[in-house]
Amino acid sequence: MADKWTYAFGNGQAEGNRSMLDLLGGKGANLHEMSSIGLNVPPGFTLTTEICSHFIQTKGEYPEALVAEVTEAIQKLETIIDAKFGGGNGDQVLLLSVRSGARASMPGMMDTVLNLGLNAETVESLARATGDERFAYDSYRRFVQMFGDVVLGVEHYHFEDVLEEYKFDHGLKLDTDLSVEDWKTMVQKFMDLIEAETGKSFPSDPKDQLWAAIGAVFKSWTNKRAVTYRRLYNIPDGWGTAVNVQAMVFGNMGKGSATGVCFTRNPSTGENAFFGEFLENAQGEDVVSGVRTPQSLTALERQATASDLLSFEELMPDLYKELNDVRLILEKHYKDMQDMEFTVQQGRLWILQTRTGKRTVKAALQMAVDMANEGLIDKDTAILRVDPDQLDQILHPTLDPDAQTEVLGHGLPASPGAASGKLVFNADDAAAWAARGEDVILARVETSPDDINGMYVAKGVLTMRGGMTSHAAVVARGMGTPCVSGAGGIRIDCKAKTLSSLGEVLNEGDVITINGVTGEVLKGSVPTVEPKLDGAFSTLMEWADKVRVLNVRANAETLEDVVAARRFGAQGIGLARTEHMFFNPQRIVHVREMILAPNQDTRLKALDKLGEYQCQDFVQLFEVMDGLPVTIRLLDPPLHEFLPSKIRDIENVAAELNMPVEDVKKRTADLYETNPMLGHRGCRLGITYPEIYEMQVRAIFEAACNVKASEKIVIPEIMIPLIASLEEFSRLKALVINMADTVLAEYGVKIPYTVGSMIELPRACLQAGLIAEEAEFFSFGTNDLTQTTFGLSRDDAAPLLQSYLEKGVLRRDPFVSLDQSGVGELVKMGTARGRSARPDLKVGVCGEHGGDPRSVNFFHNAGLDYVSCSPYRVPIARLAAAQAALGVVFEDKNA
Amino acid sequence: MADKWTYAFGNGQAEGNRSMLDLLGGKGANLHEMSSIGLNVPPGFTLTTEICSHFIQTKGEYPEALVAEVTEAIQKLETIIDAKFGGGNGDQVLLLSVRSGARASMPGMMDTVLNLGLNAETVESLARATGDERFAYDSYRRFVQMFGDVVLGVEHYHFEDVLEEYKFDHGLKLDTDLSVEDWKTMVQKFMDLIEAETGKSFPSDPKDQLWAAIGAVFKSWTNKRAVTYRRLYNIPDGWGTAVNVQAMVFGNMGKGSATGVCFTRNPSTGENAFFGEFLENAQGEDVVSGVRTPQSLTALERQATASDLLSFEELMPDLYKELNDVRLILEKHYKDMQDMEFTVQQGRLWILQTRTGKRTVKAALQMAVDMANEGLIDKDTAILRVDPDQLDQILHPTLDPDAQTEVLGHGLPASPGAASGKLVFNADDAAAWAARGEDVILARVETSPDDINGMYVAKGVLTMRGGMTSHAAVVARGMGTPCVSGAGGIRIDCKAKTLSSLGEVLNEGDVITINGVTGEVLKGSVPTVEPKLDGAFSTLMEWADKVRVLNVRANAETLEDVVAARRFGAQGIGLARTEHMFFNPQRIVHVREMILAPNQDTRLKALDKLGEYQCQDFVQLFEVMDGLPVTIRLLDPPLHEFLPSKIRDIENVAAELNMPVEDVKKRTADLYETNPMLGHRGCRLGITYPEIYEMQVRAIFEAACNVKASEKIVIPEIMIPLIASLEEFSRLKALVINMADTVLAEYGVKIPYTVGSMIELPRACLQAGLIAEEAEFFSFGTNDLTQTTFGLSRDDAAPLLQSYLEKGVLRRDPFVSLDQSGVGELVKMGTARGRSARPDLKVGVCGEHGGDPRSVNFFHNAGLDYVSCSPYRVPIARLAAAQAALGVVFEDKNA
Repeated sequence: MADKWTYAFGNGQAEGNRSMLDLLGGKGANLHEMSSIGLNVPPGFTLTTEICSHFIQTKGEYPEALVAEVTEAIQKLETIIDAKFGGGNGDQVLLLSVRSGARASMPGMMDTVLNLGLNAETVESLARATGDERFAYDSYRRFVQMFGDVVLGVEHYHFEDVLEEYKFDHGLKLDTDLSVEDWKTMVQKFMDLIEAETGKSFPSDPKDQLWAAIGAVFKSWTNKRAVTYRRLYNIPDGWGTAVNVQAMVFGNMGKGSATGVCFTRNPSTGENAFFGEFLENAQGEDVVSGVRTPQSLTALERQATASDLLSFEELMPDLYKELNDVRLILEKHYKDMQDMEFTVQQGRLWILQTRTGKRTVKAALQMAVDMANEGLIDKDTAILRVDPDQLDQILHPTLDPDAQTEVLGHGLPASPGAASGKLVFNADDAAAWAARGEDVILARVETSPDDINGMYVAKGVLTMRGGMTSHAAVVARGMGTPCVSGAGGIRIDCKAKTLSSLGEVLNEGDVITINGVTGEVLKGSVPTVEPKLDGAFSTLMEWADKVRVLNVRANAETLEDVVAARRFGAQGIGLARTEHMFFNPQRIVHVREMILAPNQDTRLKALDKLGEYQCQDFVQLFEVMDGLPVTIRLLDPPLHEFLPSKIRDIENVAAELNMPVEDVKKRTADLYETNPMLGHRGCRLGITYPEIYEMQVRAIFEAACNVKASEKIVIPEIMIPLIASLEEFSRLKALVINMADTVLAEYGVKIPYTVGSMIELPRACLQAGLIAEEAEFFSFGTNDLTQTTFGLSRDDAAPLLQSYLEKGVLRRDPFVSLDQSGVGELVKMGTARGRSARPDLKVGVCGEHGGDPRSVNFFHNAGLDYVSCSPYRVPIARLAAAQAALGVVFEDKNA
Repeated sequence: MADKWTYAFGNGQAEGNRSMLDLLGGKGANLHEMSSIGLNVPPGFTLTTEICSHFIQTKGEYPEALVAEVTEAIQKLETIIDAKFGGGNGDQVLLLSVRSGARASMPGMMDTVLNLGLNAETVESLARATGDERFAYDSYRRFVQMFGDVVLGVEHYHFEDVLEEYKFDHGLKLDTDLSVEDWKTMVQKFMDLIEAETGKSFPSDPKDQLWAAIGAVFKSWTNKRAVTYRRLYNIPDGWGTAVNVQAMVFGNMGKGSATGVCFTRNPSTGENAFFGEFLENAQGEDVVSGVRTPQSLTALERQATASDLLSFEELMPDLYKELNDVRLILEKHYKDMQDMEFTVQQGRLWILQTRTGKRTVKAALQMAVDMANEGLIDKDTAILRVDPDQLDQILHPTLDPDAQTEVLGHGLPASPGAASGKLVFNADDAAAWAARGEDVILARVETSPDDINGMYVAKGVLTMRGGMTSHAAVVARGMGTPCVSGAGGIRIDCKAKTLSSLGEVLNEGDVITINGVTGEVLKGSVPTVEPKLDGAFSTLMEWADKVRVLNVRANAETLEDVVAARRFGAQGIGLARTEHMFFNPQRIVHVREMILAPNQDTRLKALDKLGEYQCQDFVQLFEVMDGLPVTIRLLDPPLHEFLPSKIRDIENVAAELNMPVEDVKKRTADLYETNPMLGHRGCRLGITYPEIYEMQVRAIFEAACNVKASEKIVIPEIMIPLIASLEEFSRLKALVINMADTVLAEYGVKIPYTVGSMIELPRACLQAGLIAEEAEFFSFGTNDLTQTTFGLSRDDAAPLLQSYLEKGVLRRDPFVSLDQSGVGELVKMGTARGRSARPDLKVGVCGEHGGDPRSVNFFHNAGLDYVSCSPYRVPIARLAAAQAALGVVFEDKNA
């Protein structure tokens, strides 16, 4: 049991401080802190979070000592303010606010009661003390309304109804049209309403009001809104909220009173300039609600917005100066940009709140670098100031903000980036149009593995159905292709080849633009601008690179992606998917020829042709990555992924390859798999069709020899996918070495290379000790490892995951953020076993998790050598790796 | 390096004995043993397996000391026999046999040379010594032919050609028509042939012959046949073969000579009676080859077969008595039934070989029990004498052996048992015909998950394609339904609904019979007989039950299977699959109604109806299993398994349910999954459709209450499938407890029950410590655990597994025999973690592996409490568990 339940602050003193976040909540701790450093904070006291836990456990009881403590705290307040709670000190009446304040910010989720302490007597005192009867009764009716809603459970709309009816009956339009008498009537009507609804009369004793309000705020910790919010943001239920009871100050006591919100620096650009808004003669909620247009804080801002209304700086220059001093004190004190609330009550400035301000990623970068350069923080702190996930917003080409756009609809921002192109409605059309050089946007109701070839060539993907983890979303993110998924308001008819929205019908070939960052779908072509990766961004990334231990590579194989990878600072290619090169329309013919070959001769001819193409690809890859390692994964997907499934397409392929339709059909049927994810793919192809892997290895080493001849440094790493046993690996390693050495001998060239294993099956993790006897490196394929460890198909899981996340069965999507306690244990086990057999084993990750900050953090702590992710996530991984090296810890939330 | 390479035997002495199996091979060790216990064995010596290893490592060299040792060994032989190798002791010529003999029997896989030592001189001595020139030259040409083939590599058919041509030219029909002169000519022709083929003349020096023959036999260890055999039977390449060089004895030296094969007990029935065959004036190969019909060994046997030919007992009564003495000595010595070879050379009995005799499972049971009762062996040894896998042959109904049958074709014996029924060609027809009470055999080209409902109702399954691990085979075995798969000679046309074979065409409705033990497909209905499970079988099983620690339960849910389970000694139901009850044609309507329900009301009505059916099922289950635990698994398969996939079927279902076709189509499409194995199934259904699990739990407990009311003991264990996390389990456990307690309260009855978890995902094994906090028992679903651990779909894996087994990438099919080093480690880990959280956690296995002896052995050693398998495999598991308790060890072969 605690021996102290309330902590007082005010008058330049405080019993708490900002380090007491757990006990006093965020808001409370900062009120104490500000008070103790001499800022003018309305005095008050905080009821600790421990009371909340006690209150919830005992279903509504308070610790014994509390009543006495609160009584004493109120007395202290009365002394400071020189006013009495409930009256009794002339007309100097102490009114209170009662607010929640948890350890983590939960904006708007819990309840607040203002103006507490008013009743038939004290309202009259207030009227006399302020000389403003209308203000007093307006405050009173606000209190009755708020208390009735929050504490007594009479829903908000009842009060609105009563007020609206009254206004209608009396021909009044605005609240400001109501007179003192009107408000007096309203107070009575509200009280009658409450009595009618609850069967009890409104409490007039301020002490009863206070205890009821405190209880309501504590209780609001468990309201549905708050519970949902905590689930979403992974805030433990056990934390509880504190309650802050504070003397009321009023920004609406006429001219000379005001209220405002401000930031110590510009939260949008990061510029070191005071920034904010205020309203004269208003309460805090008026600024936020947008009923009146707020005025600028500074003169400069006013100029920038060309406003008629005076700025705070101009209107109340002395108070502005005082506020600016507070700004400087707070920033120096907190060493971070602050988001403050202030009120001016009849010429006196009160600071109501300060907290670390939210900011755009651009501002975050700028402030972090500026503050480090100013000496306010050190570089390590600067690195920790930017959320790696947020970086994603600035790394992709974005739509030109100056362009005129016509919005067709909205979907989910499934894969970042923006793209324009001609509409096509199926994968084969996409392939055909792309083959003749058209930029296309592939629009589908939803995508399936059959659409891969179309997605590969499309500039962007748009689907009508499917969430953030739908097939389209996942595959597009993997490819780095912009995607908007689940655009339910848009109707896509793939048979008719039309896209309809807002009464407009677009046809195949019409140009649209999608914005994968916002989810917008736009008509026509909208120009994009490449992100600028200089200035604060590049400075901060440099600092991060000096700190981090984990290397960062990219998953890339197209020239575009490989170039992007280098630009984003990748230290090599961690995953070049050779099959992505197969989907190119020129090549898929030969791929199909190979698969459908009626005899060895035809098959080898097709393979030769493919080998030539692959060699060209690898030449590009090696040239761009000059001096950096390039990990090339041999063919992975099941062969049927390259075959058509619809009868018309089968007929086309048969015609193209000059084969009987029946033969194509039969082979396609033979290759069909019930569960392709667990099918004939990966190294299994290498063992059953060694000629395919031989072709690929030959192409890799011919390319390597050619590139080396142009004085470049080539570091090939051959990676074999879906290994389950040492036996598979050693056979295929022998195949690779045999072919590699043959080619190197033909060219008379020496190029050191390594042969390693994907570790993406639970069995491979278990058998890692054996596999590492032969494998020179490991790369965890955490996508597939998650699928097999969970027994969950990523192609199908979207609706289930959605439901699991909603119900809280899972806290995080394991395909987005590594399941540390399950899949993570296998990663650790595989690494430890592998290294025990081969201490210098290089271990990396090449699943999508390689670009997720939480997962990067885990991989750092698991002692991996590198992560590899999509080029556009390389900076994210670099920053996350640096933060991990600086000791940032995430909790694993999935049980 | 060994200091001794050859071991001599003969004349009542031996340098080796039967314990020296590794060094002398099986044949050699037994020759030494027999010689040392005084049996009349042709003297000889054994070249050790170590020479073989040396020979192979050095690519054809012998240890230095070997030549001297062999020379000395030959001299010893010459002394014993009083004859000289290569001549020089009058006409007493020593001829030799050179035979392979590895540690494990590899019948016919390696080479043998007989009559070695003959040349132009010694053949004349042989003629004189035996007074039979024709015999001498016949032996000579046999030697030249055999040596030419085995040692010199001139293939067999060349010699046959020469002989046939000669016979044709001279108008001779049988070998016996050839005269001495003919054989002399043949010898020359054979030698000419060899010289023409090899370019070298036939070696005449017996010493050269001997070394060449020894080399050839050692080399035959690495011939393709032998290598393949070793791979198939998991015999290590490193063992090598020994070579036995032995003085020749001849059973073909006229009347008074004979040769035979005999068993110390009847290998077919197990009866304790001497049993064998012999031929007068013949060599051993004549008995085996079947060129002449062998005669009975005993008079009794001769009577039984009503043969005209005298038995050995009648023909050579003294020698028979001597042989019978040998029989008794050997059986007492080896304490097991022996398979012996003997030769009588001119009135003298020689024992050529003894080894443990192969036997039918019936005989194995009888002998094991008899020998234990006779005191020859103890009961533990008796238990170890029967191969559990072999038991499968006698547990299923078999075709009446007296019935007349007409064979239509053959396939693979994919799932044991025999069944007759009317031919149907698709699953829906099967369901429809079965619904009106017909017995049907479902014939398909191959089966897929779409056929499950048809397979469930069919009496037997026949497929044209697919191996022992095809979908049809696996599913049928799982259901205990007889199946013949891959009957390639039979053409099944599912469109035309015909089955054609041997020129005959059968139509839908025609009756056929399949025999899942032999793979035979028969026309018409063939009566079956139920196996008798009394006598030796039941005695041995009783003994086994006393020894074993592991409990054995059955996977069963139909009345038929549950009754069988009890009959076969199951100690409970380890897995009742509630969904199997759904496939019944009466019920699937309601299942579909539930899935397709447009609103909650319709869904609940359908569920109510299903609940009634399920309750009836559970009543049966509990009644039969009175007093034994019954583990019921809640719904597991994805819902789409219950929906039709073909458009015609969709239309039918829509009509049946009075729904628009489009709605059925849409819902079917919505439920479609790319990888159903990793899909929306198991506990995921329970979480997303709690009403289904609630219905099932209500049905279980209503049934339990009803059965308990009839004075029976009900022990329900509710099992939740596909658990990946504690979160899933604890939510569903709460659901189960809530509903169970509601029902029990309604009935006012107390029934103790437990709630446990399937452990069938790698993540569940990793998280077992957490899951066991809530789960009261674990049941490893090793089928699915194998699929996810390996990343291998059982529905698709057949061709790949076939290829992997052929290439030796895998040594065993992991779906048949548990992958101990991979999946097995997860089983051990899950058990250990589970028990560390809950020391009294009951842990079982309910995958197909529960009926595989090797796997049962593993589960015993992993400390599991029980295995559960198909009813027909319960005795197999009981025996395997007993053998495991007696310390039988299997090696894990998959790397």
